[in-house]
Amino acid sequence: MKRYLSGDEWNIEEREFKPEHHPNSESLFSLGNGHMGQRANFEETYSGPSLQGNYLAGVYYPDKTRVGWWKNGYPEYFARVVNAPQWIGIRIFSGENELDLYRMDVSEFMRKLDMKSGILHRSFTASWPDGTSVRVETQRFLSMSRRELGAIRYRLTPVNFSGELSASLYLEGDVRNQNANYREKFWKPLGHGTSGRYSWLTSRTKKTGFEVCVAMSTRMRINGRSDTIAPDRESKVNFAAHRYRLTVQAGETIEWTKLAAVTTSRDHPADQLVQQACNLLDRAEKTGFDDLKKEHINWWNRKWDISDIRIEGDLSAQQGIRFNIFHLNQTYTGHDPRLNIGPKGFTGEKYGGSTYWDTEAYCLPYYLNTMDARVARNLLLYRYHQLDKAIENAVKLGFTNGAALFPMVTMTGEECHNEWEITFEEIHRNGAIAYAIFNYIRHTGDRQYLVEYGLEVLIALSRFWAQRVNFSSSKQQFVILGVTGPNEYENNVNNNWYTNLIAVWTLNYTLESLEYVQKNAPRRYEEILKRTHFDPQRETARWKSVADHTYFPEDKELGIFLQQEGYLDKEQILSDEVPEQERPVNQHWSWDRILRSSLIKQADVLQGIYFFESYFDLDTIRRNFDFYEPRTLHESSLSPCVHVILAAKLRRAEKAYQLYLRTSRLDLDDYNNEVGEGCHITSMAGTWLSVIEGFGGMRVVNHHLSFNPLLPESWQSLRFSINFRGNRIRIIITRKQIELTAANDEEVTIQIANQTFTLSGRKPLQVSFKA
Amino acid sequence: MKRYLSGDEWNIEEREFKPEHHPNSESLFSLGNGHMGQRANFEETYSGPSLQGNYLAGVYYPDKTRVGWWKNGYPEYFARVVNAPQWIGIRIFSGENELDLYRMDVSEFMRKLDMKSGILHRSFTASWPDGTSVRVETQRFLSMSRRELGAIRYRLTPVNFSGELSASLYLEGDVRNQNANYREKFWKPLGHGTSGRYSWLTSRTKKTGFEVCVAMSTRMRINGRSDTIAPDRESKVNFAAHRYRLTVQAGETIEWTKLAAVTTSRDHPADQLVQQACNLLDRAEKTGFDDLKKEHINWWNRKWDISDIRIEGDLSAQQGIRFNIFHLNQTYTGHDPRLNIGPKGFTGEKYGGSTYWDTEAYCLPYYLNTMDARVARNLLLYRYHQLDKAIENAVKLGFTNGAALFPMVTMTGEECHNEWEITFEEIHRNGAIAYAIFNYIRHTGDRQYLVEYGLEVLIALSRFWAQRVNFSSSKQQFVILGVTGPNEYENNVNNNWYTNLIAVWTLNYTLESLEYVQKNAPRRYEEILKRTHFDPQRETARWKSVADHTYFPEDKELGIFLQQEGYLDKEQILSDEVPEQERPVNQHWSWDRILRSSLIKQADVLQGIYFFESYFDLDTIRRNFDFYEPRTLHESSLSPCVHVILAAKLRRAEKAYQLYLRTSRLDLDDYNNEVGEGCHITSMAGTWLSVIEGFGGMRVVNHHLSFNPLLPESWQSLRFSINFRGNRIRIIITRKQIELTAANDEEVTIQIANQTFTLSGRKPLQVSFKA
Repeated sequence: MKRYLSGDEWNIEEREFKPEHHPNSESLFSLGNGHMGQRANFEETYSGPSLQGNYLAGVYYPDKTRVGWWKNGYPEYFARVVNAPQWIGIRIFSGENELDLYRMDVSEFMRKLDMKSGILHRSFTASWPDGTSVRVETQRFLSMSRRELGAIRYRLTPVNFSGELSASLYLEGDVRNQNANYREKFWKPLGHGTSGRYSWLTSRTKKTGFEVCVAMSTRMRINGRSDTIAPDRESKVNFAAHRYRLTVQAGETIEWTKLAAVTTSRDHPADQLVQQACNLLDRAEKTGFDDLKKEHINWWNRKWDISDIRIEGDLSAQQGIRFNIFHLNQTYTGHDPRLNIGPKGFTGEKYGGSTYWDTEAYCLPYYLNTMDARVARNLLLYRYHQLDKAIENAVKLGFTNGAALFPMVTMTGEECHNEWEITFEEIHRNGAIAYAIFNYIRHTGDRQYLVEYGLEVLIALSRFWAQRVNFSSSKQQFVILGVTGPNEYENNVNNNWYTNLIAVWTLNYTLESLEYVQKNAPRRYEEILKRTHFDPQRETARWKSVADHTYFPEDKELGIFLQQEGYLDKEQILSDEVPEQERPVNQHWSWDRILRSSLIKQADVLQGIYFFESYFDLDTIRRNFDFYEPRTLHESSLSPCVHVILAAKLRRAEKAYQLYLRTSRLDLDDYNNEVGEGCHITSMAGTWLSVIEGFGGMRVVNHHLSFNPLLPESWQSLRFSINFRGNRIRIIITRKQIELTAANDEEVTIQIANQTFTLSGRKPLQVSFKA
Repeated sequence: MKRYLSGDEWNIEEREFKPEHHPNSESLFSLGNGHMGQRANFEETYSGPSLQGNYLAGVYYPDKTRVGWWKNGYPEYFARVVNAPQWIGIRIFSGENELDLYRMDVSEFMRKLDMKSGILHRSFTASWPDGTSVRVETQRFLSMSRRELGAIRYRLTPVNFSGELSASLYLEGDVRNQNANYREKFWKPLGHGTSGRYSWLTSRTKKTGFEVCVAMSTRMRINGRSDTIAPDRESKVNFAAHRYRLTVQAGETIEWTKLAAVTTSRDHPADQLVQQACNLLDRAEKTGFDDLKKEHINWWNRKWDISDIRIEGDLSAQQGIRFNIFHLNQTYTGHDPRLNIGPKGFTGEKYGGSTYWDTEAYCLPYYLNTMDARVARNLLLYRYHQLDKAIENAVKLGFTNGAALFPMVTMTGEECHNEWEITFEEIHRNGAIAYAIFNYIRHTGDRQYLVEYGLEVLIALSRFWAQRVNFSSSKQQFVILGVTGPNEYENNVNNNWYTNLIAVWTLNYTLESLEYVQKNAPRRYEEILKRTHFDPQRETARWKSVADHTYFPEDKELGIFLQQEGYLDKEQILSDEVPEQERPVNQHWSWDRILRSSLIKQADVLQGIYFFESYFDLDTIRRNFDFYEPRTLHESSLSPCVHVILAAKLRRAEKAYQLYLRTSRLDLDDYNNEVGEGCHITSMAGTWLSVIEGFGGMRVVNHHLSFNPLLPESWQSLRFSINFRGNRIRIIITRKQIELTAANDEEVTIQIANQTFTLSGRKPLQVSFKA
């Protein structure tokens, strides 16, 4: 844990410069706009510890797999989110002195992420050993209205000296990933040059052949006057610079503006990248920095209007949730159906790939509720389009008959993770993909999706489960052996309760869906049967049999489900018995010790109860929560959100609140000592869930919304809005009542606690309720 | 499986040159002399597929660990047996034509390993595309009497042409390991030069700093006359050559002799390596090739006299066992206590490290029976000297109080394997180390070893087990969770029967040993208590409690021990259900499929029964054998030997014989399609065991030898000799009787079947017996 940030409900602020905090801040203050993003690296040279990171959505590199011992079935490559040519660089020299905060005295430092506007601010005074000092103020944003555009305003004032000053505003193509498996460079430089006032570089990723152009335009003004000096321009392989040299007087303010356009062959013909980038710069120059910023802020204003959550009475909670929403909004905007939501977004290199089960299990509801239903539908279609590859993947592992195993980590549908216990065994991911279809339809009512796409995916998933089980003659039931559940602190276990549950549920849901499509779209049904070579009698008989006779481990005496068979053979250690200095245990304990312990990385039984809440009575939920919560370390970022929701359901306000802080401030307060590597983007959607479904108590049951709020003691009110079947509904929960207002005229049936109300048109519905 | 070799009882022969067999032959025909060894690479250039390999015992490189995902507790490096500067090279040119069997027509090819003499022969006629051809005959050996010396005689006759011929006899320092994790070179060249008639190179391994000198002396004779031409000599970084140019007449025979001396800083001061190598060459030159060969053959004659096994009536079995004994004798000679027995010996790069549990579990009896007891004792001391590192290793994994976990793979006592399921979980290796102490003392009667060294190791091992178990409140017994047993086709299982057995046995044996030392060497006992901070009351109480209350999985109905908990939940597939084209399954099935299947890589329950045979009645052994044998794939080279021994015990001659062929001809017939990577040296000791303990039925029970032979149908007789407590006993088993002769005058009590006899002095004892 590391707490050094301050700020207010809209701003995250760092008030003192400490190099040991810098890698964390680089992650936390990252910017993105769906198309591109970057860590909060300094524009000027910084010679201290730093992770330079600049990323382009969808641009990846198939890094040659590195494993200790090859296992049959491992994928050939691991998809890396590529560290891309960098455009923020500005080197500043005063005579021989270079501006480098690592080697200078820094005072009045302030770094601020203005989440309302999506702008990164920085200001500081820095002194060289010779006593001369400068004052710097910067602003940076990645335009939301022009996604290929980034802008920097860099103001510098010599505080106590006059003399020679030079600035080099540059583009750098020679970048590499810190996490490359073999220190390989992923880029090949293509060209460089100038075009009018602009300089540019082009590069191509090796193997994948993505081409990228980075172009810049720069301007300088002194004391607000327009620039008089044109820069010296240099352009060579992998490098382009605009150099300004001038003589300054103490107290004068020099302002550089740097606009950068980043175009890629994902969006344009490769031979037009330079032209497109220059056109973009032309238009941006005409608009000017200030108006570009206004456009950008307007986008954010609109975005916040629909996605904001307001918490009165608790600054820390308020700041935390906005931080999460801010990152979600800047990571994935839904504008490009080829993209997905990487677990680190644009904030770091770790993990690689862009698509994990996180999308289906945690992220989908955020997009369902804050954006047009097409965005969530695109996320489902992303998997539909990769179904063939999931079938191929299953064939590699020995499955037949069109069974599919979706990848654990992917860019293109091909698996690119390579630890056997995850790649081959963390198969519950397949369940999340089925669940997402169900969840999408539950929320949107769009059953047509099932007909057009969903059923095909479900059939392939059920075929997988039907083959993956085996009949245990000793148990006289079906079992699922050798899996890793969501709790990755157990590997290769038998009968993971969660996996068995979601497998059986998938089989049943597929059976239901088959019936639905047969009845409602018989022609399409026949088409699907033909296309998938489906044998209705034989296959559904097997599925029913498996669904009805699968083993679920439980302990009758304790009245709990068992995470896996044999869980109670472990020495039962609780998480609060682990000394602070040994946390997170994955940084301190050897792997075997972790595996043997009863400690849990993330919700597993509780995850299953959360997904299928209606199957369980409140006593069962309580018993399982009381058993598993004390054993859970929450060392997965995906863990606490689910616990918040269940704690809230159990009316455990204090517990829910503590866990909420953990999820919403996981990165801000660096609970797991790893934020320097990047933020936990996908778990931020879990945080959102923990507010809406936890404290808001929102559910969709039988096509109707229901609420059962619970406010933490310090919260005076909670406000949010959701998109439900095309209607935007605003919810205000205070300690005494819940107020709902719909954006359109439709009548909406709403359940609050156990009472049914009708929300009609745009008239607020107020219901007294002790939250 | 690949069968292409012929030969007779003393020779392995390859009669046709096929490039696709070459990598296998390079492994099979490898030479070694304990100090150094090499694959049967051709002297002349060979541009086809080949694994060049030349190795020096004890010279290793700490290759930077390569893993997909780092786990806490992983070692920093993986010790590689280093591919060392190569001295066999001879390039031959006829005009522009280079001798290269991959690019020529080859006829009358013969490669022969003369196991009786330890000499590699080769002869062939090779024709270039222009129709000219040469006849070549070579001999090579690594001297057993002068371990730093290798010798080659290379004879060449132009068959159908006269003209210019040149030969370059060279040393090559620029070698690399094919299996280097990062394509790194392990050697740094140091020097090169000539000294008198000799040329030399010196090199140093990076990081470990082993220095090596390779020096050569060469001679040429034409038609048996002494050489008249002195070679041109070249020496540069990493390369030295002696070049001979001459004009030859068709039918003339040119003979080159190349002697090489290889000295290392493991044996000499680094600054004397060149001098030592040249002195060696001086002495060798004086002796001459023919007499060097005689010395070498004499060594082998003596060696065979004590280690040979003769099987009358079965050429394939006879050749197989000699092949195994030959490799064992040339891999580890016991002359250097710092060495151990690498699983590939000098035949390949795979695995790395030199010390596995193979040494204790499989190899020790071979050395106990065929060499002076000091050799086996040295093998035990090797671990004793590494005890501190084993304790450090355990500390890394969270153990305390002097508990030791010996490494899975090591050179120096440090762990260098990096798969969590092996490194951290294949802890049964600790048991083998205790068992070896017991086995050594059982065979030699040297209980003093326990007093001086053994007890300290046993205490550290028992401390490990006492911490590694945990008490299961649901079972009310101790359990051992999260282990990998000898059957590596299961990972991270609970209560592996073998592991639990050897753990409990170790605790009991340590308790016994403590009592023995306390009674017989009270002063040493006190010293050990002090040194190990041993708390006799508390610790032994815990050990007794664990030993008495540990859970053993079994199935009462089937009357078998269960390999691990839950084994019967698997779909019960037998090994003969796996189609031939899917074998070995580790080359065809994905890892998860292997893990989930009931198929077994190697003996696990049966391994335990073999070690502790006297604990089990014959019916129990039969039931377990009948259950597990059909499920065992024998895809570990260490597997079949144990099955042979148990099958013989159960008087299943045919089964025992089939399994014996599998173990004794595992490499010769390449059962597992992997011999190109190297031979399975350590399992060769298992093969030896399978004859002695299997067909010979030999045991040591209560300080006495016992025999209970069983001859396969085709065997007329079986002869071998063993070293038992300083006495060499020769055994001849025919179909009607067993005859024993002791080498010295002591009276020896011998049990044959269930009768007791006395073997007195050097008089043969003949007992009628239907084997």
